[in-house]
Amino acid sequence: MARTEIASLGEFGLIKHLTEKINLTQPSTKKGVGDDAAVMDFGNKKVLMTTDLLLEGIHFNLEYVPLKHLGYKAAVVNFSDIYAMNGTPTQITVSLGISKRFSVEDIEELYVGLRLACERYHVDLVGGDTCASMTGLTISITCLGTATAKDIVYRNGAKVNDLICVTGNLGTAYMGLQLLERERIANAADPSAAFEGMEYLLERQLKPEARRDIIEQLRESGIKPTAMMDISDGLSSEIKHICHQSGVGCAIYEDKLPIDFKAAELAEEMNLNIVTCALNGGEDYELLFTCDLKDYEKLIPLEDVYLVGHITKPEYGTLLIGRNGEELELKAQGWEAFK
Amino acid sequence: MARTEIASLGEFGLIKHLTEKINLTQPSTKKGVGDDAAVMDFGNKKVLMTTDLLLEGIHFNLEYVPLKHLGYKAAVVNFSDIYAMNGTPTQITVSLGISKRFSVEDIEELYVGLRLACERYHVDLVGGDTCASMTGLTISITCLGTATAKDIVYRNGAKVNDLICVTGNLGTAYMGLQLLERERIANAADPSAAFEGMEYLLERQLKPEARRDIIEQLRESGIKPTAMMDISDGLSSEIKHICHQSGVGCAIYEDKLPIDFKAAELAEEMNLNIVTCALNGGEDYELLFTCDLKDYEKLIPLEDVYLVGHITKPEYGTLLIGRNGEELELKAQGWEAFK
Repeated sequence: MARTEIASLGEFGLIKHLTEKINLTQPSTKKGVGDDAAVMDFGNKKVLMTTDLLLEGIHFNLEYVPLKHLGYKAAVVNFSDIYAMNGTPTQITVSLGISKRFSVEDIEELYVGLRLACERYHVDLVGGDTCASMTGLTISITCLGTATAKDIVYRNGAKVNDLICVTGNLGTAYMGLQLLERERIANAADPSAAFEGMEYLLERQLKPEARRDIIEQLRESGIKPTAMMDISDGLSSEIKHICHQSGVGCAIYEDKLPIDFKAAELAEEMNLNIVTCALNGGEDYELLFTCDLKDYEKLIPLEDVYLVGHITKPEYGTLLIGRNGEELELKAQGWEAFK
Repeated sequence: MARTEIASLGEFGLIKHLTEKINLTQPSTKKGVGDDAAVMDFGNKKVLMTTDLLLEGIHFNLEYVPLKHLGYKAAVVNFSDIYAMNGTPTQITVSLGISKRFSVEDIEELYVGLRLACERYHVDLVGGDTCASMTGLTISITCLGTATAKDIVYRNGAKVNDLICVTGNLGTAYMGLQLLERERIANAADPSAAFEGMEYLLERQLKPEARRDIIEQLRESGIKPTAMMDISDGLSSEIKHICHQSGVGCAIYEDKLPIDFKAAELAEEMNLNIVTCALNGGEDYELLFTCDLKDYEKLIPLEDVYLVGHITKPEYGTLLIGRNGEELELKAQGWEAFK
């Protein structure tokens, strides 16, 4: 039998390859694979469903990630997917594979974080599966949410001349990870001195929040985005998804990218290009959305929402416009997990 | 910090311990942790949700489990949980953690099995997550289903004098596993001779089916079980769950246990007690249900349904009645995965 290395397809290539033969037959299924969450219709409300698998050594390193924070983050990244559909997360199931290295107290810590996230976002933990594992910790979470049909925002609705917006700031979670990695390698007896003043960067990496507040602001302002997703793999990768699925191009302006001052400072210290970090860093769990030009006036007063570019005709491609007006093709580095 | 070994609680003890502090706040959540699936109310229909995590080296051994069968089984065991609530499975999400050992063709094989199961049971695969893994293959599946509120059967409804029924036969999947293990250890160049005539046992282990047919028969006969669950950990373990949650006892008759002839023959050859296998073998994915005594006449004509005992007052405990009338306490050996 032929053998194609998974690395030759990459994660998205593999998913595309595996899912293109799937047929949907249930009348209740409104949207299957291909967006932040699937959409089902069970009556008055649409049901959204999303899932994430986190593996030790791949997605987290317990040398510097406290289990409580890991639990919190594992739940929140799923909520973020539901918000990114303009929905409201309502239930999660949590499956754990646990090796002998972990004690009951360890798993309790993980659950403290899970419960805290659920309480804060008003989500119910409704089930799961718990089993032994040969090596390390495996966390699989599935989240359901609801939305009325007319509110759901997909990735494929961006139109030429739409505005492109992002929330919060970008690259900060990545710089938090760089800091943690640097101190792990330095292996200082007490890394707290190195972390002083950097709490915000660490929090962005270890304990991100889902942007429920933005979804609420958008609703109150009467803005319905034309396309939306959360930024888990980096802005470059995500805007390319939106452009590809919407059949459009984009222009992102380098000088409009929202960047945290501390993150920029640390990047300089570590000899990293902060723009590259902001474009490709990932794990910010901010929202990326496009909206109609006519909503411009409504957008301006929104807190923590930044206009970073606009949608173009597909033939222009997906461009980054540099500080001196130079045009660069956006590259989706994202997570190349299979490399 | 204190350290309690997970093994000291066992799987169910750990789950109980972890979930007793969970509060449910969503009006749409009708049932959380503690049954085969959670129950949500999103309108006309109730939505059922269940999830399973399968880890290489714990739940499956790829030395003798073809990936196609593994995919099929991974989906079907989730469908079985939804049927065990008297519901209809409608959607699944599939998350995979994949190590470098696997090629695209390998994962395609897995998906062939997943798709076959979905097609056969009319279930939509609607999403998932795919990522690299450090070691081995991880499969996490979540399944949604629907049911009307009045049809849902929980584990806590068994009443004194109810009849206890099981479907199909018990211990066969376990004997299939014993056969595979024996041949793996024997390491013969061609094990097909050893497998001749044993195809049914192997199929029970490698490619089980969910008992949709039984659910349909029960509906057509106008029987609504008072309690029901699927047999994944063995009859002893499962009936104890029903008795515990319903606050009742039970008497199971050894001579009523449905046992496959070939399985019994192989058990004798391998010096195993087939009754112990039938009670504790697990992975049969048959249904265990209780129903009111008044449904006796309706039960008799049902195909592949066997009356194995009755529900008693709680003070009698959970008993196995031997062939000579001797009373033994049922022991739930099940999967002691953390030992």
